[in-house]
Amino acid sequence: MTTLPQFRSDFEALDALDPLASLRDLFDVPQGVYLCGNSLGLMPKQAQQDVARVVSEWSRDAVGGWDAYQWRQRPLALGDRIGALIGAEADQTLAVDTTAINLYKVIHQALAIAGPTRKIVITERENFPADQFIVQSVARDAGAEVWVVTADEVSAKVAEAGERLAVVTLADVNYRDGSRHDMASVTSAVHAVGGLMVWDLAHSAGAVRVDVLGCGADFAVGCGYKFLNGGPGAPAFVWAHPRHIERFTEAGFPGQPLTGWLGHADPFAFGSEYEPSPGAMHYLCSSPSQLGLAALSTGVGTHEATSPFGGQDALWEKGTALTGHFMRLVADKLGDVVTSVTPSEPSRRGSQVSLACHGELVGHESRIVGALKAAGVVGDFRIGEQRDEWRTADYMRFGFAPLYLRYVDVYDAVEILCDVVKAKG
Amino acid sequence: MTTLPQFRSDFEALDALDPLASLRDLFDVPQGVYLCGNSLGLMPKQAQQDVARVVSEWSRDAVGGWDAYQWRQRPLALGDRIGALIGAEADQTLAVDTTAINLYKVIHQALAIAGPTRKIVITERENFPADQFIVQSVARDAGAEVWVVTADEVSAKVAEAGERLAVVTLADVNYRDGSRHDMASVTSAVHAVGGLMVWDLAHSAGAVRVDVLGCGADFAVGCGYKFLNGGPGAPAFVWAHPRHIERFTEAGFPGQPLTGWLGHADPFAFGSEYEPSPGAMHYLCSSPSQLGLAALSTGVGTHEATSPFGGQDALWEKGTALTGHFMRLVADKLGDVVTSVTPSEPSRRGSQVSLACHGELVGHESRIVGALKAAGVVGDFRIGEQRDEWRTADYMRFGFAPLYLRYVDVYDAVEILCDVVKAKG
Repeated sequence: MTTLPQFRSDFEALDALDPLASLRDLFDVPQGVYLCGNSLGLMPKQAQQDVARVVSEWSRDAVGGWDAYQWRQRPLALGDRIGALIGAEADQTLAVDTTAINLYKVIHQALAIAGPTRKIVITERENFPADQFIVQSVARDAGAEVWVVTADEVSAKVAEAGERLAVVTLADVNYRDGSRHDMASVTSAVHAVGGLMVWDLAHSAGAVRVDVLGCGADFAVGCGYKFLNGGPGAPAFVWAHPRHIERFTEAGFPGQPLTGWLGHADPFAFGSEYEPSPGAMHYLCSSPSQLGLAALSTGVGTHEATSPFGGQDALWEKGTALTGHFMRLVADKLGDVVTSVTPSEPSRRGSQVSLACHGELVGHESRIVGALKAAGVVGDFRIGEQRDEWRTADYMRFGFAPLYLRYVDVYDAVEILCDVVKAKG
Repeated sequence: MTTLPQFRSDFEALDALDPLASLRDLFDVPQGVYLCGNSLGLMPKQAQQDVARVVSEWSRDAVGGWDAYQWRQRPLALGDRIGALIGAEADQTLAVDTTAINLYKVIHQALAIAGPTRKIVITERENFPADQFIVQSVARDAGAEVWVVTADEVSAKVAEAGERLAVVTLADVNYRDGSRHDMASVTSAVHAVGGLMVWDLAHSAGAVRVDVLGCGADFAVGCGYKFLNGGPGAPAFVWAHPRHIERFTEAGFPGQPLTGWLGHADPFAFGSEYEPSPGAMHYLCSSPSQLGLAALSTGVGTHEATSPFGGQDALWEKGTALTGHFMRLVADKLGDVVTSVTPSEPSRRGSQVSLACHGELVGHESRIVGALKAAGVVGDFRIGEQRDEWRTADYMRFGFAPLYLRYVDVYDAVEILCDVVKAKG
């Protein structure tokens, strides 16, 4: 195809050429166009059976299941598989607890590693609220200072904090506008002044190319129920760089604070002094949810199913293409009333496009999202925030999960958006 | 029956009279005698269907499930039902996260409520290891001192700490020997010197009569997968007294530290300042595991099913009878080689009996438990602990879940224990 696709038939042609097209069949895809895979991924058909199997394990072996099925090892086994999607190696990633709880663990630990002379934590104004709340909570206990900055200010503020900098924590893909940081350059800048870097990959894992080892990050956390398709309230994940992991069992090395029984080096010794487990198991606290892990395992499996068709590289390319076509069609057809706030440069955006209204449509964002939903296009609405002098716009937010979306879905969504906007405009 | 039951037919007669006998049919009961319901409760038959229903909700409505099924409210709705089993009123209990994580939340909060002049935390040597690790972790951050005492020393140490006492945290039912504290009198003693009382009800909820409001406790946590039958890694619960809950939204009142998005008073405002949700929802952090909550809901339902048959009172009486008969038969038949370390006074023990060997059988505990399991009697082994001058014995531990155990199971278990002991002795 030498010209850019314009008509529905052009998009049908792209689907016919899509090497990943058959993966859509792995999912229960609802009628319409589901553009909320960045909020809750669709259910893989296999989930029902995989979850039922764990219930059967419970039924068949009861407490014997801990031995029979290696229940304690599952967070690590699944963590390794998630790690493979974010550039990690084995025994660095654990599937456990929730994103916010894992963030608490690693920011707490990172502040302790940074030591008593480094008491500044930098986070971003538009980070997801939970990330900000957790940073505030940990910093308050540690007597640290939180600098809340804009994305553009990060580098300058890191330099300003200098040898007082303890930790920087940012979301790779921003949940509101879909913009991305350059993980490698931010991490380098933080390391240049001796700070530690914690990445939130909630909107990245399973959606965009991430290389936690390559960028040299210190810690990362992420979500299991968005692009990883793990189901509502799925376990999250946590990753640590081997330069820290290798020291977990070193006397005096600061551990994570949620020191439960199963993260102990030898739980069944029932000792009363905590000795951290080596490796990523250090982040395990209590008995992990076997049902949650089962569904998340199914979800991660849908990503592994890309292997014969070009793997995650092909998936990321398709995601970029989907968001790119969406942005282009919206600009062509609705450019006078709607603007994409998501970067047009592919490497700078997640698998998501956020739109802001302008002109007479300002204030109609929530209603438009509601009308879209009624017409079968499921996106969502993120309210802008007013704080001090700083104000963000309300956004209409659309996630593009390349595992189950078709090119023609992009076309249809924009057509319906045009109809809805015309009716409201 | 005027004489104590001795023969199998006597126990069969007790089963015939048991008003709760039909509840066994709610469960998938394995062959043999399952005496590990205090470790992992058996699967209610209904669980498979209830879990499958939530997977279907995910399939049918995807992200719309949050509205369609009130997913965010489920931890509170289920918490209220668990609260009813421990003497709580509505909106005081939340089903969420894990026992250890919930303990972290409330001990952290309790230390802050206690204020800067109170820096002593008292816990018990034989508390479950996770409880000790969590106390150590929170106390380290708060600059508090941990006094690790024996059960017998608690009162004296509370008095000694006096106005320096911040928090006492104990398990109601001890996981090793099954002994119970008198929750009301311990709580009163702690309050008398101005301290706060945190109870771990992991081995109590669904097993023994607990009255958190009646005893005036400050906070409590507990486990979903033991006597509540919520399945492997089920969500745990957390309870707070209304005198604290009423102050959660008061400016400056110390909140729990795991300040996630969904515990915010208005999550969808996406504000960057944390404002705690009123009520028990304050303890919610992140998106709760819907699969975990579904199975736990089924498990709690098995307790609610006692209503037509005398309710929880009848259940607790049956549990006391089961453990009482077990202890008596063991004393009669094996008193020369095995001793129960669990109190004989019913109000002083949980629904559990722990046995220590003496004489020539010392050191055979683990092998006996293995041989019992091979013969169909599933109990477990808890190793003794050596620390300084203090040493506990190895125990054979047997949990008695009155929802699905029969009187005849007690007889059969003791008969098999006799065979095993004779073979080993």
